[in-house]
Amino acid sequence: MPWKAIGIFDSGVGGLTVLKEIVKALPQEDTIYFGDTARVPYGTKSPETVTRYSLEIASFLVKRDIKLLVVACNTASACSLDALQETLSIPVVGVIEPGARRAVSVTRSGRVGVIGTEGTIRSSAYAKAIKRMNPEVEVVTKACPLFVPLAEEGWTDNEVARLTAETYLGGVRDHGVDTLVLGCTHYPILKRVIGETVGDAVKLVDSAEETARTVAEILRGRDLLRPSAELGNHHYFVSDVPAGFIRVGNRFLGGSLGDVYQISLDTEKG
Amino acid sequence: MPWKAIGIFDSGVGGLTVLKEIVKALPQEDTIYFGDTARVPYGTKSPETVTRYSLEIASFLVKRDIKLLVVACNTASACSLDALQETLSIPVVGVIEPGARRAVSVTRSGRVGVIGTEGTIRSSAYAKAIKRMNPEVEVVTKACPLFVPLAEEGWTDNEVARLTAETYLGGVRDHGVDTLVLGCTHYPILKRVIGETVGDAVKLVDSAEETARTVAEILRGRDLLRPSAELGNHHYFVSDVPAGFIRVGNRFLGGSLGDVYQISLDTEKG
Repeated sequence: MPWKAIGIFDSGVGGLTVLKEIVKALPQEDTIYFGDTARVPYGTKSPETVTRYSLEIASFLVKRDIKLLVVACNTASACSLDALQETLSIPVVGVIEPGARRAVSVTRSGRVGVIGTEGTIRSSAYAKAIKRMNPEVEVVTKACPLFVPLAEEGWTDNEVARLTAETYLGGVRDHGVDTLVLGCTHYPILKRVIGETVGDAVKLVDSAEETARTVAEILRGRDLLRPSAELGNHHYFVSDVPAGFIRVGNRFLGGSLGDVYQISLDTEKG
Repeated sequence: MPWKAIGIFDSGVGGLTVLKEIVKALPQEDTIYFGDTARVPYGTKSPETVTRYSLEIASFLVKRDIKLLVVACNTASACSLDALQETLSIPVVGVIEPGARRAVSVTRSGRVGVIGTEGTIRSSAYAKAIKRMNPEVEVVTKACPLFVPLAEEGWTDNEVARLTAETYLGGVRDHGVDTLVLGCTHYPILKRVIGETVGDAVKLVDSAEETARTVAEILRGRDLLRPSAELGNHHYFVSDVPAGFIRVGNRFLGGSLGDVYQISLDTEKG
């Protein structure tokens, strides 16, 4: 019996940062990645629509016989994790819970900032997860809708990026947080300007590493790790033509993505 | 026999600026508007995907028995007008041709700038239309991907907006254009900062008025104008939950939108 792959999805290319950490932690595992590039972004859309899209993608990946599903998109994790866990019989891992756990373990002052898309922030998913782990921790949140288009435009180190970061993060910084959760897979691309804005004393937390650790724990606990010395295979699917995904994805992964296939979820359903 | 309505679609809320001009020019006409808010934006997606979405929406509107279809989205006009005109038996009007015609009639220097989304600029649709009308006119184009998120964030008059406009438009201004086509329905919202950046000597052209004029001409030519003194009725459909559309739409139209219905194009197809 061949070993099953780990399924990972995101609204687009950003989830590759999570894939990267999973491959680093579990190099022998096969992965199947889905980027919903024909409907990106999710962060500005309603929870109902994001959940409908997430269930469609999960159904596509489950048909390819995955053993675990990673929701690498913060917005989809915030809006749709419950629906996915109720619907699927395999384990489903989001990025919110791991990011929240890391923040709680990192903070000394007990004041944590969380930034993300409108959808993620409106859901209060991070604040709820952090409070569940430690009700004493104070959480300050701020939606930063322009960070995704800035990262995609490649304006990561110019005056527009700095002014935008100052406008969004000035209040968060003045609130005295010592930990800031980058609650969107695009935000690590703006890490430098975000770090300069909030100052050296503030630790930046991104969920990718902690999510990879959670995936490894679950697979180990269920005896589902692939016992091999060979490197795993990685397959990529997108819903729009692959060119843009390949270009940005290679920048994200720092190397060759390999083959990327375009599929239409509408056709899959039929 | 009841008079048929005019169908209008856009990737989201921006096309309401075109609807507004149509209602002003033809107040007795009924309209049906579709905003594809579950899949917005189109400007970053491939021509193939934009065309697939456009055909789905056209099919939805044609079932509601419209007499003419207005493609109020610049990206969809640039990528999908030919496919729509080939597929449909009613007249299809895009916003590119009217905007180009206006620019050609406005310019004195013979140097015209065109700004729009990546999809619109990559298609060269404006440049081709302008050259077809007057091969002597020189066309300078520039994609401005951050203008749409800036307009949606409501950052229309701050330092970030000014710096972004300067970064995108400095080169266009220095090229000596005397006319600038706002080739995206969101851009009129940034009219002030765009105007300040390129200077008073540059005339800003938006397609909405000219498109309304084209619609009136076609309907008059085919004897399809509704002969009534009553005001028309206006219906709105969107693909995501209506709340955001209603909020921004009321700002765009300066008044009450009326009822907005959510529909799923997937379900329609079944």
